[in-house]
Amino acid sequence: MRPKLVLFGDSITEYSFDEGGWGASLANHFTRRADVILRGYSGYTTRFALKIIEKTMEGIGSDEKSPVAAVMVFFGANDAALPDRHNGFLHVPLAEYQQNLKSIYAYIKKIWPSAVVIFITPPPIYEEARIKNAWLLPEEDTSGLPERTNEAAGEFAKACITIAKECSSPVIDIWSKMQQVPDWEKSTLSDGLHLAALGNKVLFEEVLRELKALGLSDETLPADAPPVESLL
Amino acid sequence: MRPKLVLFGDSITEYSFDEGGWGASLANHFTRRADVILRGYSGYTTRFALKIIEKTMEGIGSDEKSPVAAVMVFFGANDAALPDRHNGFLHVPLAEYQQNLKSIYAYIKKIWPSAVVIFITPPPIYEEARIKNAWLLPEEDTSGLPERTNEAAGEFAKACITIAKECSSPVIDIWSKMQQVPDWEKSTLSDGLHLAALGNKVLFEEVLRELKALGLSDETLPADAPPVESLL
Repeated sequence: MRPKLVLFGDSITEYSFDEGGWGASLANHFTRRADVILRGYSGYTTRFALKIIEKTMEGIGSDEKSPVAAVMVFFGANDAALPDRHNGFLHVPLAEYQQNLKSIYAYIKKIWPSAVVIFITPPPIYEEARIKNAWLLPEEDTSGLPERTNEAAGEFAKACITIAKECSSPVIDIWSKMQQVPDWEKSTLSDGLHLAALGNKVLFEEVLRELKALGLSDETLPADAPPVESLL
Repeated sequence: MRPKLVLFGDSITEYSFDEGGWGASLANHFTRRADVILRGYSGYTTRFALKIIEKTMEGIGSDEKSPVAAVMVFFGANDAALPDRHNGFLHVPLAEYQQNLKSIYAYIKKIWPSAVVIFITPPPIYEEARIKNAWLLPEEDTSGLPERTNEAAGEFAKACITIAKECSSPVIDIWSKMQQVPDWEKSTLSDGLHLAALGNKVLFEEVLRELKALGLSDETLPADAPPVESLL
């Protein structure tokens, strides 16, 4: 048996195989033991995720020999864009975000009943860096206000934790974890939103910890081929 | 359609999702367009590869929606270990290496007839660094001789190219390509055998070029979900 670990999320997932990324680190860690499947969609909210979930998951497949063991569901960073700021078109109201997370959970459990859904909260936001790294900022917007705030991200993080509990699913509160790192604003984030090397490391280690709690670790999962020394 | 790209090889493949690795770079490059599947086995020769190929490929699956489009076959670095040196237990005679490559090709084409097999030759060897990084060197071996030579690796590279031609398959002559890089001994290799950051980059670009020639590029492969801008 060689399980699959699916990463389903927004740009922080899409970029997770870039240098030092948490997705590549997982694939490297589980080499010979599990396949890490990337389903990351830059700019996507839970609303958009629901539009594509059926199509994007259909090719993955899951059978006895290669079951989907866990799906990381990592949305909210875009949903939490403030409605009255320049990325307001992304905003998803908190109640809808929660309902969408439930629908994503339900869909995954429908197609892969034995898969565990691990929710990941949105990361914290460093507002100063967001002002400097504004995306699609209209010229006429001279407010100097960031499109996301850490407070809003925190509300979405709490809302995500609530849904995880309702679903009896594990959850990684990366919003809180990353803020425990010294100088987190600059050490864990590259542009106030996406993960720097240290942020990738923190998330990678949290995912490892959650997977281990589910019995998915390099100690418990069998290697799919013997070490060369045993073949000599 | 979201094709799969399978990486089948030895440690240079197994480590390809480490920081800056050519496998992770491929997954990052083809995000939303293809899945990169890692099947790397440290220390393996073509002889060992044939022992496990059935088991290791069986979970991958290939169907209309997610066909295996290409398999990178990257063995020979271990086969080319010299028979009379301290890693001689790895050595596979040149004629058997060629026969084994043909058998690997035949097996892949049997299970996935539409997949293209892309052969990759063993990389060049920097002998001085191999002496310093000797693996399983017995105490009594004070010969000071490396377990691999660049000349032997070159013979296996040529033998690999011959088989690729016989199979009408593309081949990446990384043995030659890497030796065109200034100071290749230290710039492309980390320990005289495995790839440093620059060696990973050279191989990544060669793989991209071969895939593009097969119509597998980020320009020709459809994204599996629309960019967020088109959803607004």
